[in-house]
Amino acid sequence: MDKAAAVFNLKGYHATSLSDVMRVTGLEKGGIYNHFASKEELETATFAHVVRQMRTALFESVRGKRSAMERLEAVCRLFARIARGFPVPGGCPVMNTAIETDHADSALRSLAREAMADWRRFLETIVRSGIERGELPGTSDAGELGALVIATLEGAIMLANLHDDPTIVDKAASQLLSHLSTSATAAAQ
Amino acid sequence: MDKAAAVFNLKGYHATSLSDVMRVTGLEKGGIYNHFASKEELETATFAHVVRQMRTALFESVRGKRSAMERLEAVCRLFARIARGFPVPGGCPVMNTAIETDHADSALRSLAREAMADWRRFLETIVRSGIERGELPGTSDAGELGALVIATLEGAIMLANLHDDPTIVDKAASQLLSHLSTSATAAAQ
Repeated sequence: MDKAAAVFNLKGYHATSLSDVMRVTGLEKGGIYNHFASKEELETATFAHVVRQMRTALFESVRGKRSAMERLEAVCRLFARIARGFPVPGGCPVMNTAIETDHADSALRSLAREAMADWRRFLETIVRSGIERGELPGTSDAGELGALVIATLEGAIMLANLHDDPTIVDKAASQLLSHLSTSATAAAQ
Repeated sequence: MDKAAAVFNLKGYHATSLSDVMRVTGLEKGGIYNHFASKEELETATFAHVVRQMRTALFESVRGKRSAMERLEAVCRLFARIARGFPVPGGCPVMNTAIETDHADSALRSLAREAMADWRRFLETIVRSGIERGELPGTSDAGELGALVIATLEGAIMLANLHDDPTIVDKAASQLLSHLSTSATAAAQ
C-alpha cells in the first residue's frame, strides 16, 4: 500500500493506471482485485492510509511539548519532512488531492476536505490554548492563525517541489514562527 | 482559448479530453487541429495564455503604488481575485500545473517553473526596494520574504478552493501584511 500510495501521489489518482500500481507493487491484477472491488476503492483506501500516517505523525510531533510555540515548531518540522518525501514522495498528498479533485465532488475530495479540516482544528486548538495561557496575544484569532500556518506550509511545499528545493519550507517556517513569536512577545509584555 | 483554459484548470490538463475542449469551445476537432498540431500544443498554448494574463495583472496591480507595503497589498488583492476565479475558475493555474506535473518533466512543467520564478523575482524586487528605502528592515532577506508571500497566498488559495471559502485568502493576506508591516514599523524606529 505504501508503494501504491507513492505512485498515486506522484502521478495523481486519475493519471495512475492499474498497470502502474501492478508495476510498483509487483502484484497481479487479480491480486489487487482480491482486496479492492474497483480502482476507486483502491484509491480511497490508499489515500485514507496516507492520511492516517500523517495524522499519527502530527499528533506524535507535539507529544511532550508544552508551550504553543514549541508545538507549532514541531508542526513546522513535520511539514519540512513532508517536503522531503514523508510519508510519500511528491509533496503533500492532501494538497495534491485537493487540487486534483477540484472540478467535481468525489470520495477522494471528501477525504481530503475532512483531513484538512482536522488539521485546521488541531492547529486552532494549539493556538487557542496558547492564547488562554497568555503565550499568544488575546487579540489573536485562533482559527485564522491555524489556517495561516497550514496555508504557508502547504504553499511552501508546492514551491519546494516545483523548484526542487526543500529548504523553501524551512525558510517559510522560520518566517512564520518569527511572526507568531513576535505576537508571543507582545502578549508577554 | 479562455474557455479551454477554464476546463483545463478545473479538470487538469491530463484528465481533460479533446471532447471536453470541443464541448466548451463549440469548435470541431478539425477546427482545433487547424490551430494546434497536437493536444500537447493546445495545452502549452492555453497555459502560456493564462500565465500572460496573470503576469499582466501582476504588473498592473502595482502601477502607481509607491511604497513596498502598498505594492504588497496590491499583490495580495490580486491573489484574492485569483481565489475568486481570475483569470479562470479552479484556483491558481500555476500551482495546479506545478502539482499535476510533478512526476515528470514536461513543457507544461517548465512553463509553470518559469512563471513561478518570475513572480518570485517580482516580489523579491518589491521587498528589496522596500529595504533600500528603509520601509522594511535591512535585516530582511528579500528572496525569503518574496517566497513567503507566494507560499502563503498559494496555500491559502488551495484551502479556499477545498473549503469553498475565498475569505481564507483575505485572512491569510491580512496576517501576512501584518507580519510585514510589523517589520516595517521596526525598520522605521
